[in-house]
Amino acid sequence: MIQCLKNPLTQTSHKTFDAMIDLKQYLQTYQETINNKILEFLNSDDHSSRVVQAMRYSISAGGKRIRPILALAAAEATHAPVLDVLPAACAIEMIHTYSLIHDDLPAMDDDTLRRGKPTSHIQYDEATAILAGDALLTLAFEILSSTEDPTRESLSRHLKVMHVLARAAGYQGMIQGQMQDIRTEGNKIDLETLIAMHSLKTGALIESAVVVGALFGNANPKKMQALRSYARQIGLAFQVIDDILNVSGDPEELGKAVGTDLNRGKNTFPGLMGMAEARAFAEDLVQTALKALEPFDNKADPLRSIARYIIERNK
Amino acid sequence: MIQCLKNPLTQTSHKTFDAMIDLKQYLQTYQETINNKILEFLNSDDHSSRVVQAMRYSISAGGKRIRPILALAAAEATHAPVLDVLPAACAIEMIHTYSLIHDDLPAMDDDTLRRGKPTSHIQYDEATAILAGDALLTLAFEILSSTEDPTRESLSRHLKVMHVLARAAGYQGMIQGQMQDIRTEGNKIDLETLIAMHSLKTGALIESAVVVGALFGNANPKKMQALRSYARQIGLAFQVIDDILNVSGDPEELGKAVGTDLNRGKNTFPGLMGMAEARAFAEDLVQTALKALEPFDNKADPLRSIARYIIERNK
Repeated sequence: MIQCLKNPLTQTSHKTFDAMIDLKQYLQTYQETINNKILEFLNSDDHSSRVVQAMRYSISAGGKRIRPILALAAAEATHAPVLDVLPAACAIEMIHTYSLIHDDLPAMDDDTLRRGKPTSHIQYDEATAILAGDALLTLAFEILSSTEDPTRESLSRHLKVMHVLARAAGYQGMIQGQMQDIRTEGNKIDLETLIAMHSLKTGALIESAVVVGALFGNANPKKMQALRSYARQIGLAFQVIDDILNVSGDPEELGKAVGTDLNRGKNTFPGLMGMAEARAFAEDLVQTALKALEPFDNKADPLRSIARYIIERNK
Repeated sequence: MIQCLKNPLTQTSHKTFDAMIDLKQYLQTYQETINNKILEFLNSDDHSSRVVQAMRYSISAGGKRIRPILALAAAEATHAPVLDVLPAACAIEMIHTYSLIHDDLPAMDDDTLRRGKPTSHIQYDEATAILAGDALLTLAFEILSSTEDPTRESLSRHLKVMHVLARAAGYQGMIQGQMQDIRTEGNKIDLETLIAMHSLKTGALIESAVVVGALFGNANPKKMQALRSYARQIGLAFQVIDDILNVSGDPEELGKAVGTDLNRGKNTFPGLMGMAEARAFAEDLVQTALKALEPFDNKADPLRSIARYIIERNK
């Protein structure tokens, strides 16, 4: 069904407003596909289990599914059969959700609200939240290690995908970024350090999502490098906008409190650069990201639209 | 004829004594091999990183390495090149250590001492302990997804190994067991429920360690089933003895406090059965485990000795 989805962005890519309307449809279609598949992965087993309930609670809390959609869109950009990437895309969303559950814990960011709902440790309890996070991370790898295609090429790709994601999520990637984020709270850091931290904390998983999609398209090294560059820019832009929304966003729209970064002494892009400079920085990053996509044909239009969406979003 | 005159009891116990001497050497050799390899996996990167320090702290705290050694011994029993299993064996120990770090957290078992040392959240802090656990789990999968052998057989085995471990460690295995353990604290449960809980909490990973070793030996379904049965029995026996040592063990020898299960209202085997019955139960389990190994030749002797060691240990 997804493969039949016409790409309506081709003719209107220069018209941001039109593209955003079409992207809305694109995102919605893929969000539904991803959500259905995630529930399939979580539905087959014991419904009464508290840990499964907590896993389902957090992953169904209505995220934007940007990371898995990036994986699908990168597959499309590299002319891969998009649905082949779906299980890996769901695994990426599970890794993302696990990281949110653990980041929200009292010992970490101590957040009580996420996506407009009580965080896992508020809805359940701390032990359940820790275990639900652990279980989502582990389930991601269970999914990634399942394959019905026994060809050497498919087996090799599965292992590469797992390796890319494990590295991105691990102590040299996302976890390292989260550790730095916690340790620098209340201490002033410079822009370079802030960028390096977010390249790990949010950037690594976003980059790996794009790489995973491109692995299914057997992208050559040059195209892979271009997609990595695209992903790094939009990953950082995503974080800059997140920081901006934490200052000026609408709590109802966002589904979480605003002003929390300031209260907590977090280092942020608007804090270090000022609001106008931070927005200009995000716009520059998106332009660079779009430039990196120049060698790609119109199959990369969804990636282009996502880049624009990232700076135009209000939640 | 002369053999018939020998006292079979004396002979058995004498044999056990010899086997235990050899086992000590066997365990020590493999413990060193495993420890060196683990440090290799954790040494190549940023030494100053707090999360890496915490990972190294917990995994170097001097565990018995029973799970990775079971993987190596199962490889040996199925005539596989033992060292091929070493990376997977290290990954199994990382999964085990992550589970200990998270189980010790204040929101879970709230333990301050493990293997004679302060637990991770005491030595560092809760956030670091959560992240160090997350990172060890993720590193395990990073290691499991690395291979230098690009043959179809090797790729396929790698994926199978990951799948077996992810399932055993996940919400249908170890995590589910830990959840049940926490939820039943202070509530009386029956023996059947206690056995089912421990089959998940400690049994699943022990069983998967043996299965992983046997996958490297390409064990046929019958031998695989026998090894699974062996692993289930010794996994449960291991837990029964753990419970017994928590009542009657020497805190100095154990490296942790005793009597904690009782204080916490934990359901235990001696609590439900009495001490003598619990010990007899563990001995029965080990006998059944040894029976399952009957179709194997003397390459399975290390597995046999480990089964005996489990009920004879005092730490």
